[in-house]
Amino acid sequence: MQRYFIPKEHFLDTTVRVTGDDAHHLTHVMRARIGDRIICSDGSGREAIAQVTEMDKGMVVASIIEHVEPANEPRIDVWIAQSLPKGDKMDAVIQKCTEIGAARFIPFVSERTVVRYDAKKEEKRVERWHKIAKEAAEQAHRSRIPVVEAPFDWERLLHIASWADAAFILYEKENGLMFRDALRGLFDDAAPGGRTAKRNVLIVIGPEGGFSEREIKEAEEAGLKPVSLGKRILRTETAAMVGLTCILYEFGEMGG
Amino acid sequence: MQRYFIPKEHFLDTTVRVTGDDAHHLTHVMRARIGDRIICSDGSGREAIAQVTEMDKGMVVASIIEHVEPANEPRIDVWIAQSLPKGDKMDAVIQKCTEIGAARFIPFVSERTVVRYDAKKEEKRVERWHKIAKEAAEQAHRSRIPVVEAPFDWERLLHIASWADAAFILYEKENGLMFRDALRGLFDDAAPGGRTAKRNVLIVIGPEGGFSEREIKEAEEAGLKPVSLGKRILRTETAAMVGLTCILYEFGEMGG
Repeated sequence: MQRYFIPKEHFLDTTVRVTGDDAHHLTHVMRARIGDRIICSDGSGREAIAQVTEMDKGMVVASIIEHVEPANEPRIDVWIAQSLPKGDKMDAVIQKCTEIGAARFIPFVSERTVVRYDAKKEEKRVERWHKIAKEAAEQAHRSRIPVVEAPFDWERLLHIASWADAAFILYEKENGLMFRDALRGLFDDAAPGGRTAKRNVLIVIGPEGGFSEREIKEAEEAGLKPVSLGKRILRTETAAMVGLTCILYEFGEMGG
Repeated sequence: MQRYFIPKEHFLDTTVRVTGDDAHHLTHVMRARIGDRIICSDGSGREAIAQVTEMDKGMVVASIIEHVEPANEPRIDVWIAQSLPKGDKMDAVIQKCTEIGAARFIPFVSERTVVRYDAKKEEKRVERWHKIAKEAAEQAHRSRIPVVEAPFDWERLLHIASWADAAFILYEKENGLMFRDALRGLFDDAAPGGRTAKRNVLIVIGPEGGFSEREIKEAEEAGLKPVSLGKRILRTETAAMVGLTCILYEFGEMGG
């Protein structure tokens, strides 16, 4: 069944309305007919199977047949803070990390970030990133669209680090803390099978030129742990995908 | 120090010769001078620090100061068999997976592979993939360039599966084997600290349209284990990066 994210105001108790690009896709690409079934999600975890009852110009109405329990979301929220990379690498980070299972993206500007946006360009970029996150979430059969923040400055990023249950900053240093060692035993108080509140983990990834020593010092003071992803030097956009995969793998969310 | 891969015939006992694009890069991009130091690798694990002694048109000669022990290579060889994806996605797979630490790439053609190359195009592609692997290995500070094979057919792929110490095929099925469960305890006979032969693990990733049931049956008969990477549906090129990261993470090679 084809999946669509439906804005909350179109996701009613017994019907959903598919509009805009999604209505076009359903009508002209999928060539849906009255009676066909689709899966709808409100992007925040509410999900239902619905049957097409009405097709009009630019709008499809479907009646909800069954509410379903979203089952494809990780039990852990990973927030990816990525220093704005050059070119369209942020697009790749958002697409791939949405597929893998990220919960939130926080682009930010640090000392050696080369990319700068003016207000207009920033707005356009954030809009574009939202669209990429939505499409990747649909493709990956997720029931939540990850949140994409507008770029933070460094101080604001450090401030929100305290909201996470665990916060890491990727930094290569001699004899630094290895990521796996940092992850093992992190949430041991969450007894197997026991219901615990959803945890969130923040991972902060530097720009192409890396972090300054001052930034690492400030991050440590803000409670972030500097960790290494091993001996090979990863490009900034690769580090995001790899760091996220390691966290979800460790907590049994990548097939475990 | 800048790193270069030097063909074996130019990597002598006491000197190295940097030629072609690398000589141009060293001379014109890095603006090297006599006395500058570089790290050279023969791409198969031999590595040395060398000092520039001579700069000529299109060639730089450097004398070896110190042989160094390559330290950035995983202790486990991961072979990535990727059904030829559409567009330039294979480029991304080779670039990212080289950074992460793959040892060998085996592109292959399966039932639902859409992409087909004629002999001339295949030759050009393989040449391009080699170049991407070399550059990514340099960037990641690896001392080995992963091997990139010319595309295999399905039978040949199944045949070489028996050469691997463990072989997996990514396939989503109800109640299938989870990847983490499959990896845990895989090489328990390799006692900690004990010297054992280098292990190799093959992971096979299908095309956009997935594998046919017949192919999965044949793969299982050839000794490949079907495994799942979890509940979210990954694009074919994302699956390669994620699968590789999980293997290297499990065996302590992603910062552990």
